[in-house]
Amino acid sequence: MSDPWQECLDLCVEVTKKAGEMIREALQKDIAVMQKSSPVDLVTETDQRVEQLIISSIKEKFPAHSFIGEESVAAGAASVLTDDPTWIIDPIDGTTNFVHRFPFVSVSIGFTVKKEIEFGVVYSCIEDKMYTARKGKGAFCNGAPIKVSGQEDISRSLVLTEMNFDKDPARFRTMLANVESILTIPVHGIRSPGSAAVNMCLVACGSADAYYHMGIHCWDMAGGAAVVTEAGGVIMDISGGPFDLMSRRLIVASSRAVAERIAKQVADQSPEASAQRSAAC
Amino acid sequence: MSDPWQECLDLCVEVTKKAGEMIREALQKDIAVMQKSSPVDLVTETDQRVEQLIISSIKEKFPAHSFIGEESVAAGAASVLTDDPTWIIDPIDGTTNFVHRFPFVSVSIGFTVKKEIEFGVVYSCIEDKMYTARKGKGAFCNGAPIKVSGQEDISRSLVLTEMNFDKDPARFRTMLANVESILTIPVHGIRSPGSAAVNMCLVACGSADAYYHMGIHCWDMAGGAAVVTEAGGVIMDISGGPFDLMSRRLIVASSRAVAERIAKQVADQSPEASAQRSAAC
Repeated sequence: MSDPWQECLDLCVEVTKKAGEMIREALQKDIAVMQKSSPVDLVTETDQRVEQLIISSIKEKFPAHSFIGEESVAAGAASVLTDDPTWIIDPIDGTTNFVHRFPFVSVSIGFTVKKEIEFGVVYSCIEDKMYTARKGKGAFCNGAPIKVSGQEDISRSLVLTEMNFDKDPARFRTMLANVESILTIPVHGIRSPGSAAVNMCLVACGSADAYYHMGIHCWDMAGGAAVVTEAGGVIMDISGGPFDLMSRRLIVASSRAVAERIAKQVADQSPEASAQRSAAC
Repeated sequence: MSDPWQECLDLCVEVTKKAGEMIREALQKDIAVMQKSSPVDLVTETDQRVEQLIISSIKEKFPAHSFIGEESVAAGAASVLTDDPTWIIDPIDGTTNFVHRFPFVSVSIGFTVKKEIEFGVVYSCIEDKMYTARKGKGAFCNGAPIKVSGQEDISRSLVLTEMNFDKDPARFRTMLANVESILTIPVHGIRSPGSAAVNMCLVACGSADAYYHMGIHCWDMAGGAAVVTEAGGVIMDISGGPFDLMSRRLIVASSRAVAERIAKQVADQSPEASAQRSAAC
């Protein structure tokens, strides 16, 4: 039986590559302009242009499909996952990296049908690495199969996360406490590459053993979730329960043992948990 | 007048490239062997082989020169900088990254005469980026000139540092407090790439605006110090005073303003400071 979604995946790779080229072109602009005048405007402008390119290219061939895009949601569109064939798009994953030309900037697209991820594509466009994964058919980087490290020992693991300032003092403190908690296991080290989609791909190809993050969105996770799962990785909720694309929380790891240890080690720093804590007070 | 050290720089680039190839070959070994059996042995073995290659290649042409190499010092050699022409060598900068194939692994060589750095070479061998700098003649990546971002506003800066577990509780706490202190300025973000030499080169080419580190060695700093200085960066001691290659502490930044702000913001977490604190108690 032929794969009903292969045509969509082929288009996805083609469009993602074009989007990455657009990002690389934007990065040619004078760095002084980017960093000194209005980097936020440049990001927003490029983000919107890239998302428009992606959505219009796909709509042309698949007008009945649904879309959840970071920029469309920012402009007021709903971020609700239905049973429809749905393209979940992050036009620039790693916007801070984009502003600084720090080398992890990606285009991330996940495709769901009946709320299940069918395939994912992540293009790390400065590195020129195209990660692709089709459900049940493995994960690839530039066409070569990739797999997770298989590491089961947390104390030999390299762990990825994000470290940003947070205006919510409780959430900021929880983030810092989680970093301390992970480091004191101890692990081999913590890295913070700055792109959720690339982080998942680094775990997928065995360059890191785990990644945890709270407060991110479905468009940060959908593409990479397919890649890391198909590379043999484990994905779960921060609570240790099943991964939920709309939950804004995830752990991915090289093995169940490492994922579960991280789930035990960290406290929930997601906006929802913070809101719940405030409500309980 | 011809440059008296150009021949040394040419040899340095050639040897560093060979060393990087040796590291890439070692990385071809089965990842399961590396991560599950004895990664430490593999690192040590490769580290020693690479350093031997570098030192023997240089000694052949410059038998009267002095050497400070990480592995030679580990084996009991002195780590004393004299007025002699001296090659300061880190065969693998980023050993944890090496074990995990995390993409920032470098060979770093700095060359001093009368304790002044004359040139530096850093080869980020997974990325295949060769950074070179000759005193007074600028800095280059794969032959193309590079320069720092010039950013003067700390709140628009991307800051690099290292975050590792430390058995000394006071030092570990100071490291975490420094991360919190920098994040709350706030800055654009913190990244921890895991190779001191690459960190300096990322600042040198404008992909980050600052890097601070305490507890590192002259071989981690010598090559990158030349690159970032020649790229227009500022290098200083963590105290805000002049940079000292043998001090085990540094700040590098895109501008004096950013460097000085970091010096004000962080407490000294170097082993020496910790020892002084203990002695004072």
